[in-house]
Parts: sequence; structure tokens; C-alpha cells
Amino acid sequence: MSYNIVSLNELTAQFAKLPGIGKKTAQRLAFYVITAPEEYAVRFSQALVNAKKSVHLCKNCNALTDSELCSVCADESRDKGIICVVSDPKDVMAFERTREYKGVYHVLHGVISPLDGVGPEKLKIKELLARLSDGVVREVIMATDPTVEGEATASYITRFIKPMGIKVTRLAYGVPVGGNLEYADEVTLSRALEGRNEI
Amino acid sequence: MSYNIVSLNELTAQFAKLPGIGKKTAQRLAFYVITAPEEYAVRFSQALVNAKKSVHLCKNCNALTDSELCSVCADESRDKGIICVVSDPKDVMAFERTREYKGVYHVLHGVISPLDGVGPEKLKIKELLARLSDGVVREVIMATDPTVEGEATASYITRFIKPMGIKVTRLAYGVPVGGNLEYADEVTLSRALEGRNEI
Repeated sequence: MSYNIVSLNELTAQFAKLPGIGKKTAQRLAFYVITAPEEYAVRFSQALVNAKKSVHLCKNCNALTDSELCSVCADESRDKGIICVVSDPKDVMAFERTREYKGVYHVLHGVISPLDGVGPEKLKIKELLARLSDGVVREVIMATDPTVEGEATASYITRFIKPMGIKVTRLAYGVPVGGNLEYADEVTLSRALEGRNEI
Repeated sequence: MSYNIVSLNELTAQFAKLPGIGKKTAQRLAFYVITAPEEYAVRFSQALVNAKKSVHLCKNCNALTDSELCSVCADESRDKGIICVVSDPKDVMAFERTREYKGVYHVLHGVISPLDGVGPEKLKIKELLARLSDGVVREVIMATDPTVEGEATASYITRFIKPMGIKVTRLAYGVPVGGNLEYADEVTLSRALEGRNEI
């Protein structure tokens, strides 16, 4: 191909490495950057490096933070007696958006998945058990994804926590609020029936 | 919201400014950058600034280039007697991928669109007419998009070129190769019928 602009190809290649961004979309995004004001490219460029440099894991719960402790762990008003165990830092943000949960979190950074070569030793399970040893924690909420791997991870961890005499709970299964029963799958629907409450 | 990481929010905001990238996708991409090796953020960051700095318009045809002339205009073997008029630099790349076209290009950088406030004076039409005045050009191929605005732009420009005694052609309309007749719209199909060739 005679039409070849090195710096444009390089930018396209970097965009194409992002998850869910194919070659065509990457090219479109690279063109956008080139036609946008120079200030945008500069700010975007700085944001990339700054975020990567300043964001790291909370030394207590392994959520993302730019300080030593994440804002949840650092918050005196949060109940340190309840730990919500999630697989991904994004899940912490999802729970925080509900503004309902007053406990703290523990991020596993993955789920057990033998097919992908992820064993329990690659997750932050040891760190979780260490946090439970101080006797402050009354309840652990298993909030891994409702998938096969998520379920397996939750029950694997539960086996270690139960003997410590700490209550372990799991998120409720059921039909999503605002959803359409017609489109609910059979498993979700039968779980919603099982877990029905008196009104 | 108590969960707030300034540098992560800034990166998410920059991603969200890209066309077709919503808030959720932007967050997903920002998280990817943070979990990827540091080298990625650094290279991506440099690619953004480099591309924006080095890529500009070819002084002859207004395509994108990182030299004074784009690789097509600088190529001695290309036929300077045929100019293919396109609306967008991406279209040049599309034609170059065919490896069929041996002429040169002219990029208008848009189409006439009164609703969006784009009049003929905002496009590189003056520059095109200036290129035609030296008597070298034998044919101008109108290759704007087959949309209402693209057609209008093509016929607007044609009105200026015809009196100069230069041949003006338009891309053939018809059914796309590999397409399914069943899904072709009526206008495309009737244009394909009109333009039928003896075999």
C-alpha cells in the first residue's frame, strides 16, 4: 500500500489494542484525534499517563485508588464489620452508585477459571482471609458475578470462611427491576420463584 | 458519590469525547489502560501527541500526510491527469486499498450541508478549481458519498468544471459485490437496472 502515514498507523494500532475496538473503529478514532483541536490530543495524552501512574490498588481492599487507602476504606463512617467480596474494581463502583451499601469491599481481581489458567492462588483470597482474622468482621457478602466461574469462586471461598464462624451471604437472585418477564431466562425465573417473599 | 478517583475520571472523560464511545465504554477502556502494562499507557500517550503533531494536510490535494506532499501526490508514477474528488481523507485510504486507481485525489473535507451550516466556501472547492487551471487534468471523478448531500456537492462542483472542457464522471451505482439482492433498497436496485451492461 503506497498510502502510509507512520504516526497515524501507530495511533491506530494503539487504539486497536483496547478491548472491543476493532481495526476500523480504531482508524475512525485516530482520524478523530487528528481532526480535533490539538488541546484534546495533549490532554488525552496526559490523562493516560497520569491515570496509569497515580492509580493503584488500595492496600486494604485491593480496590483502585490514588491514595494509600481507597475512599471507602478511609471513610470512618463505613461499617468495617461487613465485607462485600467482588471480582472486579468496576463492581465496587457499581455498588457505590446504589448509595445503599454502608460496609467495605474486598476485590479479588478475577474469578477461578481453570480454562483460562486462573487458579485460586492468583486471586486476592489470602488477603481476604487475613482481613477476617482480626475478629471485627461479622458478615461477608459474596458478590461475584452470577456466572459459573463466579459461583464456583464464591463457594470455594465460603468453605474457608464458614469454619471461622463468620456469616457468609450471597446476593439475591431474581428478575431485574424494570426488566421484562418475557425475556427472563428459565434459570433466573426459577431462582426468582424460589426466593419469593411475602408482601 | 464517595468513590472518586480524579485521574481515572479525567481519563474516562477523555475517552468519552471520542465519537461513538459512551460513558460506560469509556469507563471500561480507562480501566483497561490502568490494568495494562505501564508501557502501553506511555506508548499510547506518545502516539496521540505524535500523530496530532506530525499529520497535516497535503498542500496539493488536502489528504493527510506527514510530509509536505502526500505519498500519492509525491509518486511520479501516478497519473496527474485524473483527479478523484472525495469528501473525507478516509475515502482516499479506501480507494488506495483497491490498488486499482492510478490517478490522484482531491479531498473536499466535507460536503455541502446547509442544515449543518456547511456552505461551499467551507470546502476545498476553490483549491480544486485552481488545480484544474493548468491544463494537465483530463478527467475529474466525483467520488463523494452516494447520499443527498454527496450528490448535491458533486453536481454543484460539476457546474464549475464542465465549462472548462474537462470530462467529469461519477462513480457507478449498483448492487454491492457479494451483497444480497433481497436486501438491496429500491433506489439502488433501479439504478443498477438503469446502468446494466451487456455481457
